[in-house]
Amino acid sequence: MLPPETTCPVIVGDGQIALVLSDALTATSPKVVMWGPLEQAARELESKRTSTRLANFHLAEGVEVRVDDAHAMKGATLIFSAIPTQFLSAVWTRLAPWVEAGSYVVSVTKGIEIDTLRRPTQVIAEALVAAGRPVASVCALSGPSIAAELARRMPASLVAASTDPELAIRVQHILDVPWLRIYRHDDVIGVELAGATKNVIALAAGMIDGLNAGDNAKSALLARGLAEIARLGVAMGGKVETFFGVAGVGDLATTCFSPEGRNRTCGERLAKGEPLAEVLTSMKSVVEGVPTTQAVMQLARLHRVNMPITEAVHAILFEGLQPQQAIRELMGRERKAERVG
Amino acid sequence: MLPPETTCPVIVGDGQIALVLSDALTATSPKVVMWGPLEQAARELESKRTSTRLANFHLAEGVEVRVDDAHAMKGATLIFSAIPTQFLSAVWTRLAPWVEAGSYVVSVTKGIEIDTLRRPTQVIAEALVAAGRPVASVCALSGPSIAAELARRMPASLVAASTDPELAIRVQHILDVPWLRIYRHDDVIGVELAGATKNVIALAAGMIDGLNAGDNAKSALLARGLAEIARLGVAMGGKVETFFGVAGVGDLATTCFSPEGRNRTCGERLAKGEPLAEVLTSMKSVVEGVPTTQAVMQLARLHRVNMPITEAVHAILFEGLQPQQAIRELMGRERKAERVG
Repeated sequence: MLPPETTCPVIVGDGQIALVLSDALTATSPKVVMWGPLEQAARELESKRTSTRLANFHLAEGVEVRVDDAHAMKGATLIFSAIPTQFLSAVWTRLAPWVEAGSYVVSVTKGIEIDTLRRPTQVIAEALVAAGRPVASVCALSGPSIAAELARRMPASLVAASTDPELAIRVQHILDVPWLRIYRHDDVIGVELAGATKNVIALAAGMIDGLNAGDNAKSALLARGLAEIARLGVAMGGKVETFFGVAGVGDLATTCFSPEGRNRTCGERLAKGEPLAEVLTSMKSVVEGVPTTQAVMQLARLHRVNMPITEAVHAILFEGLQPQQAIRELMGRERKAERVG
Repeated sequence: MLPPETTCPVIVGDGQIALVLSDALTATSPKVVMWGPLEQAARELESKRTSTRLANFHLAEGVEVRVDDAHAMKGATLIFSAIPTQFLSAVWTRLAPWVEAGSYVVSVTKGIEIDTLRRPTQVIAEALVAAGRPVASVCALSGPSIAAELARRMPASLVAASTDPELAIRVQHILDVPWLRIYRHDDVIGVELAGATKNVIALAAGMIDGLNAGDNAKSALLARGLAEIARLGVAMGGKVETFFGVAGVGDLATTCFSPEGRNRTCGERLAKGEPLAEVLTSMKSVVEGVPTTQAVMQLARLHRVNMPITEAVHAILFEGLQPQQAIRELMGRERKAERVG
């Protein structure tokens, strides 16, 4: 047994997942610090205790919002990072000088950095190394986690993946609330890749919805999509079984089927004919799947992995392919044996 | 390349899947014979060309409904069997004397016979052997296949699993219609077990819906359910990758998420407080998951496989456990590492 958690966890980010994390953390920690990258938004959250990002959510009493970088990071030894992928490097480069060396970072970001093809924990760890503040260890926390449900404390299961088993156990303890079940995991690569790539498949699932192609087609897409993201994951050093667990197929299923998913919704609107720029502008939050599709395409080429669904999504997003035509091609006439993983 | 199919396929059964199969088969075969086990229902289908089992469906012109057993089986060499599991032995024992030895049988049934714990293709093959009419080979055709969608020719992917690769290829050819994509497969055990056991998980998924526990919980259940049915499948000689393919996770996803699924609906009504007998009486079609839960529980004990979700479903269906209590126990406090397959 671990001793009771005495540190004050710090949340980097003030978006949906950051908010629901703060709710869970205050159940086990008397005080939780929250920091947001945009001063005005953070000040508003501090004063109003609500956010336009998550309807009907009130910040718990134990959460202290800090806007000053140095003040937020002062004494932080367990940091939860909840920043969209493409801002991750900038945010952590900015914070790094104020972070103590030897801290522990738990990342909930789902994506791949386009320019460098790094996973979120790599981006964070490297920003801290560059500032001479190397982490003790990192953990990827992932799984089916629609924020609106977590905000209502509806039950969810997540995995805490770290090569440092003590950190994974610590995350299990600090998130030991009745509505969460945390599984330990050691495959950080697999968990982060699963969390990123499922958003690409969710865009395709949304397109199937937009075309009213039905749940049979969407479920087959889910299975074939799972096979192709698992192939990439294994080529990059992840474990195949990670993709068939809670953070793999579990997260993929909720992302493809929940009406609330941003990536699914984006795909649905694209298939109904809205231009990508218009969809992205009108959505309040970042649609991770769009930049992730570009990153995954590069990874597929680099690792010589066949990813027909990702290719189709890329062609629809960036090369003008019509979704209806893409489905016709994916359902194409070549008769094959099924190959998984 | 195979020569064009010249035989007249025969469909044993006149339920939902039998009906949509007839539609696909008439696209590649000029004549299709259909037989139903209940004379009155079959005669009605013959005269009206519609069925109360599947709204807005009209039997294609090329389908000939036969009510006489001998007449239906005369010259049949490729037979599609679409009969609920618990009637399978009776139907095939009755038909067997009229079946020619050396025929090919393609089964679409998803279940396990309670009394004998046999898979559908085993039940069929053994009934034919007992009558001195052994098959040439059998094939299990399975995957996400909501009949209402197939009736509207919406796209779907299925697997055709046989230890006889020529039969699998033949099934790919005879179902080569624009709205179906058939993958060949060789793991008959895995495909049949996946098709049967997913209905147990779907009952649990429906209970989560009935309790309004959300999509995070349902997706985690899907992932954990997949892990436990894959464990059983592997213990019984199936391949783990089958469970992560179209006939495994694909079928599981559609069964857990489609509002049309009978097993999911049954679970939802149970969780809302309706007694099992009342739910079963009011549903027009067989709810395969209910007897399958009993069979899978026996298989789990026999093969010493830990199946906590199946156990919970069994306890809810037959031992009076409350669904709310079952979820609480499944979300229980023991902190574990995730184990898949």
